[in-house]
Amino acid sequence: MSTPPVFDAAFAAQFTELLRWRRDVRRFRRDPVPDELIEGLIAQTQLSPSVGHSQPWRWMAVDDPRQREAVQASFSRCNAEALSAYEGERAALYARLKLEGLREAPVQFAVFCDHGTDRGHGLGRQTMPEMLDYSVVAAITQFWLAARVAGLGVGWVSILEPAEICAALEAPPAWKLIAYLCIGWAEDECDTPELIREGWDTA
Amino acid sequence: MSTPPVFDAAFAAQFTELLRWRRDVRRFRRDPVPDELIEGLIAQTQLSPSVGHSQPWRWMAVDDPRQREAVQASFSRCNAEALSAYEGERAALYARLKLEGLREAPVQFAVFCDHGTDRGHGLGRQTMPEMLDYSVVAAITQFWLAARVAGLGVGWVSILEPAEICAALEAPPAWKLIAYLCIGWAEDECDTPELIREGWDTA
Repeated sequence: MSTPPVFDAAFAAQFTELLRWRRDVRRFRRDPVPDELIEGLIAQTQLSPSVGHSQPWRWMAVDDPRQREAVQASFSRCNAEALSAYEGERAALYARLKLEGLREAPVQFAVFCDHGTDRGHGLGRQTMPEMLDYSVVAAITQFWLAARVAGLGVGWVSILEPAEICAALEAPPAWKLIAYLCIGWAEDECDTPELIREGWDTA
Repeated sequence: MSTPPVFDAAFAAQFTELLRWRRDVRRFRRDPVPDELIEGLIAQTQLSPSVGHSQPWRWMAVDDPRQREAVQASFSRCNAEALSAYEGERAALYARLKLEGLREAPVQFAVFCDHGTDRGHGLGRQTMPEMLDYSVVAAITQFWLAARVAGLGVGWVSILEPAEICAALEAPPAWKLIAYLCIGWAEDECDTPELIREGWDTA
């Protein structure tokens, strides 16, 4: 076993910068991303915490144009419905927001939680079974930060109908959709969330 | 606005070390942790991603000895039930595991998701309402890493009955328990998860 690392003040300051500059990215350049970079980031997610060491995350690359179109169609339907729930200025503001980069992001992944896994032998999730899903969220969070370290932007799209996405991607029945991720080089970098810049949230 | 940071190879390598050495800690030294350190880490969780910028996380310090005893009692009951679900060698192995540091950890927090919040105006969670809970998990994940940067260990205890914890802590009805965290200086550091060292998981 190696010696435990000690993180100095310089690293801590840079780590805070990483948290400050991670963004939910919706505006991507179309430049390709090297496969090895993505593979390395996904391999690294094995270091994420998971309940009972169950590692229930399943990463599915979505490259097929027909599958991407199905995802875009699901977004369009869900977003139109979401818009119809707002009124007046709030509706006008919502309509102006760009909430996804589904057409531009060169790399896209659906991330599932495998509810059929035996790994972990159920440890830690008898009274809180949701811990399995939370383990996948933790892995996505670490992926998000690791991607930003590499200069890559990530956008988490949740304005989707999970059943439609699972059907379009032919996911195994035991897999629950946790996230749909758009990944690529951001058009621009900013330390302020877009929803604050656009006035959706003022805090 | 400041200039976007570029993270060099040295930072990336140290970041990977951080992921490698984050652990779910169950063995804590009883030395106190400075309040300012904990307050700074929790303040930093405001930089975590959240759906619609809703920031639904609510951190409740658990210092009252009677409340801590109620948490320990809930763990004892749930852990005995969990043990009774295993048989033979697996049961013997489960009985040997130390799964929490509830008696030793100097700092303890219950982390809730506020389902009553107006922040975010519902954006991004009409079809996937679970995104609100996931936002809290993301914040906990970032807290966990930030704590390890500062040399602090975190253990996430999920062998608890959420209803019992919410009652003991008198949480508002709209708050859902996401995690119970033990925080303090780890007795020892290791780059391998305890569940692998103990043979619970072999992967």
